[in-house]
Amino acid sequence: MPEVNCPQCSSKMRVDWRRNNTLTHFFYSCPSCELESQIEVEDFLEKKIEEILGIKSEKIEESIKKGNTKFFISMGIPTLLFKKETGKLESGTVIYFTDGFEVIRGFPKIRRTLILSPALKNHFNDLVAVEEKMNGYNVRIACINSPNLNNLADYDVEYFSDKALEVGENSKKVVALTRGGYICPFTTKNAQELMNLDDFFADNPDLVICGEMVGTDNPYVSQYYPEIGKLGFRVFDIRHKLSNEPLTIEDKRSLLKRYALPPVRLFGVFSAEEAHEKIIEIIKEIGLEHREGVVMKHPSMEIPPLKYTSSQAHDREIKYAFNFPFDFGRPFFFSRVIREGFQAYEMDDSPEELEKRAQRLGEAIIYPMVEIIKQINDGEPAVEDTTINVDSKEEAEIFVRHLHDLGVSAMLIEYKEGQAVIRRIYNATTDKIKNFINGGLY
Amino acid sequence: MPEVNCPQCSSKMRVDWRRNNTLTHFFYSCPSCELESQIEVEDFLEKKIEEILGIKSEKIEESIKKGNTKFFISMGIPTLLFKKETGKLESGTVIYFTDGFEVIRGFPKIRRTLILSPALKNHFNDLVAVEEKMNGYNVRIACINSPNLNNLADYDVEYFSDKALEVGENSKKVVALTRGGYICPFTTKNAQELMNLDDFFADNPDLVICGEMVGTDNPYVSQYYPEIGKLGFRVFDIRHKLSNEPLTIEDKRSLLKRYALPPVRLFGVFSAEEAHEKIIEIIKEIGLEHREGVVMKHPSMEIPPLKYTSSQAHDREIKYAFNFPFDFGRPFFFSRVIREGFQAYEMDDSPEELEKRAQRLGEAIIYPMVEIIKQINDGEPAVEDTTINVDSKEEAEIFVRHLHDLGVSAMLIEYKEGQAVIRRIYNATTDKIKNFINGGLY
Repeated sequence: MPEVNCPQCSSKMRVDWRRNNTLTHFFYSCPSCELESQIEVEDFLEKKIEEILGIKSEKIEESIKKGNTKFFISMGIPTLLFKKETGKLESGTVIYFTDGFEVIRGFPKIRRTLILSPALKNHFNDLVAVEEKMNGYNVRIACINSPNLNNLADYDVEYFSDKALEVGENSKKVVALTRGGYICPFTTKNAQELMNLDDFFADNPDLVICGEMVGTDNPYVSQYYPEIGKLGFRVFDIRHKLSNEPLTIEDKRSLLKRYALPPVRLFGVFSAEEAHEKIIEIIKEIGLEHREGVVMKHPSMEIPPLKYTSSQAHDREIKYAFNFPFDFGRPFFFSRVIREGFQAYEMDDSPEELEKRAQRLGEAIIYPMVEIIKQINDGEPAVEDTTINVDSKEEAEIFVRHLHDLGVSAMLIEYKEGQAVIRRIYNATTDKIKNFINGGLY
Repeated sequence: MPEVNCPQCSSKMRVDWRRNNTLTHFFYSCPSCELESQIEVEDFLEKKIEEILGIKSEKIEESIKKGNTKFFISMGIPTLLFKKETGKLESGTVIYFTDGFEVIRGFPKIRRTLILSPALKNHFNDLVAVEEKMNGYNVRIACINSPNLNNLADYDVEYFSDKALEVGENSKKVVALTRGGYICPFTTKNAQELMNLDDFFADNPDLVICGEMVGTDNPYVSQYYPEIGKLGFRVFDIRHKLSNEPLTIEDKRSLLKRYALPPVRLFGVFSAEEAHEKIIEIIKEIGLEHREGVVMKHPSMEIPPLKYTSSQAHDREIKYAFNFPFDFGRPFFFSRVIREGFQAYEMDDSPEELEKRAQRLGEAIIYPMVEIIKQINDGEPAVEDTTINVDSKEEAEIFVRHLHDLGVSAMLIEYKEGQAVIRRIYNATTDKIKNFINGGLY
């Protein structure tokens, strides 16, 4: 940012990133005399952004006005976050204002096919690489310049505000972003404990590792995988920071091998003609193991990938959502049910198979609902507890603050010897069910 | 309406009800020289409406602007229809501009309880009359002044426009309105064939008969009832035209008896304390006969009624909707599934009962979906055919025009000896499924 000296005491002023800055108007505050003023810095950021991203600054200004793009501090770093798709920028895209100007593009939405044949033939034309889609949460890991502060505590904005954000104090730092574009302190720490990323980023500072954090002991999506256990990471894409261009399947796998980083399972590369038969076999098999599904990619990565999921995954999600029926949107339920209809059709279920599919679906809806109504009738609110491993109670508290930043209602309910129990609270479900039980009208 | 003489040829001008009139500005046209002009008639309609309905004319003007209230011609009668609730006026309220000024209030929405106990005790405090809720369509029958034209053909606006709407040509006429407030030609004719309404309305011109048209041979909701067969009518309420005040249960039943009009079944009047137990028995029993549910009313009708439905009714609706999954809204599925959850909880299903409930629900979702996907894959669009009895092909065509006025996509596909087959067309379902089958992405 341009240097601004305080008109009152001549000290060097700082941008106050917590205020509603725009691309052209910034709130500066003076660390010495506490003078605050809004300063126009036209022809600076908007020019830079146009130049680097090839996106009109008017579009970004509009998006900021609508609240779809915001300035804030993330782990000590001034950040511009695109919460919604803006022009060609995917939602979850971030720009970090360190001494440089670093862009990490959002992970592109992968579209779903409801029917494998003829979709695969039409979409991929020659070859289809089939990788496993695991049930965890989407993470982008990158190496950025960041202020040289004390690791985790820097996540905290208040703490940060007492430190100068001065050029020259920066160093390279690995960060892990969740889908929305927020640096997650839990994931940032654990990704680096699970993998040795230093060599990779030393050699490839402009690449982003995209993958799934999976396992039972994470605060977002808990599922047991025998090969993972408590916590693990699997890489599915490597992309260029600024352009978001992915490496080919082959390049990705050889690069991961070279740095001993764990790729997701590759089921094989099939001809587009016969892929659907192979995938139906794969889906039936992994479904029985309660695994999620597959992502289908062209080996060149020049065609957008597609995803397809198992019946068991649909039921699991429906079951999960009906634990908290009034906190999950109605489209959530509908879309998963629709997937089941198309899968039953394409897999040409026998009458017995169809009956079983219907039974599983019905149970996935009714059973959790009856349970949660009973629970709330017994005076227990709708909550979800997860245990995560942390080094200190402070680290757990910082993570809960991170959840609050994401708009999640959560609290730390227990901390004991490196184990923190985090409780998510589902207020809509608790309140509505309580009301209906007491005779509230629908 | 105020009389207006043509400034060009001095003939008496007529209001053009098909144009966008407001409460204070009307389009008049001259039948002789065809001059058209918009004329301000302030202090007329809005004053009258304020006086009679006790509702601010500004509210109605606003509602007209938003398109929630509209002027149009219904069976030859200039009409103001409230498509949405406006002030205290229920949606479906109509005002007919005949020689007088007749109001028929919309049928009030009956709220649903998801749990019977303690809702009934809280809501009704002493007594609860339990009537059957049948699965047909809601009809209001009233007697109004109407222009003396030839019965059914008068429904047609074009035909009407060649006739003068002159004071003095009116006579009493019985009309049947569906929920939305449109006079339905099919229902108007059949209600009078099913029941002798003349004596009732001769003695009670200010009352409205509210009931359900049921049976297999109607164009809206087809369900077989052994005591009804093809077509029948059951009265559930008698209300005052202008005030919408209902008669007490006792007065209603004795009045219906006097005029030999058929009431809905009354299961009994129970103490509010024990009603829930009785109703659970009733619901289980009628559910097994695939009947809909009950409406619970205070005998005085001074407390708003509540409704409650059987599990089989929920499944039937879900099954019906999943024949046309992309034409029914997502909230449709969600709300019915929620009802099942609360019912399973309150009825304290045994594990076997719960398993069966889940099975029925799952089948109600999956089976129709697989069928419709197969059908569309075979090149057959998603349609629904109903056969109705009519006197002539013209009558059938008039009914289809009525459906178009309601925004329903329908056509007459066959007419033979008084039997007309009307086809409803579900375009969203046909188009979307066709697209997904061909590999369109979700």
